[in-house]
Amino acid sequence: MDIDAINALPCEDFVNIFGNVVEKCPLITAAVWSRRPFANLTALEAAISEFIDALPESGKEGILRCYPDLAGRDLQGDTLTRESREEHARAGLDALSSGEALRMSRLNWEYKVRFGFPFVICARMNDKANILQQLTERCRNERTVERARGIEEVKKISHLRLQSLVLPDAPNAPNKL
Amino acid sequence: MDIDAINALPCEDFVNIFGNVVEKCPLITAAVWSRRPFANLTALEAAISEFIDALPESGKEGILRCYPDLAGRDLQGDTLTRESREEHARAGLDALSSGEALRMSRLNWEYKVRFGFPFVICARMNDKANILQQLTERCRNERTVERARGIEEVKKISHLRLQSLVLPDAPNAPNKL
Repeated sequence: MDIDAINALPCEDFVNIFGNVVEKCPLITAAVWSRRPFANLTALEAAISEFIDALPESGKEGILRCYPDLAGRDLQGDTLTRESREEHARAGLDALSSGEALRMSRLNWEYKVRFGFPFVICARMNDKANILQQLTERCRNERTVERARGIEEVKKISHLRLQSLVLPDAPNAPNKL
Repeated sequence: MDIDAINALPCEDFVNIFGNVVEKCPLITAAVWSRRPFANLTALEAAISEFIDALPESGKEGILRCYPDLAGRDLQGDTLTRESREEHARAGLDALSSGEALRMSRLNWEYKVRFGFPFVICARMNDKANILQQLTERCRNERTVERARGIEEVKKISHLRLQSLVLPDAPNAPNKL
């Protein structure tokens, strides 16, 4: 799908295709439709990023709270979004040992109690050992540091989701249009 | 559900319960969780309203674009959210004659082409005749007027959805917790 085809999409189709580039936040995709035409995919990604950056801090926390706990109840209950399910699988989070699952669950809980939003990390860029290590380390951060770090991870996830949707030959792109 | 119970909800449960008070915008609900404790339901509603008002104009358009066309393809394809399906039924929009359905479809299309976002109206406060009349009239407005009007309607819808979820004896509250 080239940028001209993207720019020609009616808002409903644009949101149907790109609405989950930021997890469960079609509002963001729908807002940046106002900014078309985009010169290229990077410009679309930049518009999403700028919209996020302009939100108040509560809005950034709101975005983080739309992401599921990694290997949490949405995985168990099969209620992950399609994108998130794929990302879980790539990082091996759908095949944890019971010990790993317990450790992940406890650390996710500690993180959320400490910060008031869930731990967000770009699972496609990490494996399960690395994710457990970072979850442990990031629990020790300050809240403002961790909010900014979570949003950085949101942007990495969005970058890969956009690439998967638009570029047929992108690495890590199992499901394309 | 009283306000103390609402204030005690973990963010995940808060978003699960109230995430669709603004259609498909759990980001907004998740953001206002940062503002708890709320003195009462009116304070929660005001926090949602203030978050919306502080968004850039593109963000407000983004919200409007998260609402379905009334009696449109989501109704036909049974992909409306639970709340929206109920609102359609109350206004009689799930039982249009073929002539009414065609007229609604044509007017929705004209509205969206003109403004770049769908026609939003609080269906629970209107019947189908009134909705068709307002759709016809509002098509003639200026874009900025209509954006503000759409957001007013979003707030009316949110008010009734919140009441349905929280107040057992609220009028128009078929589904309560």
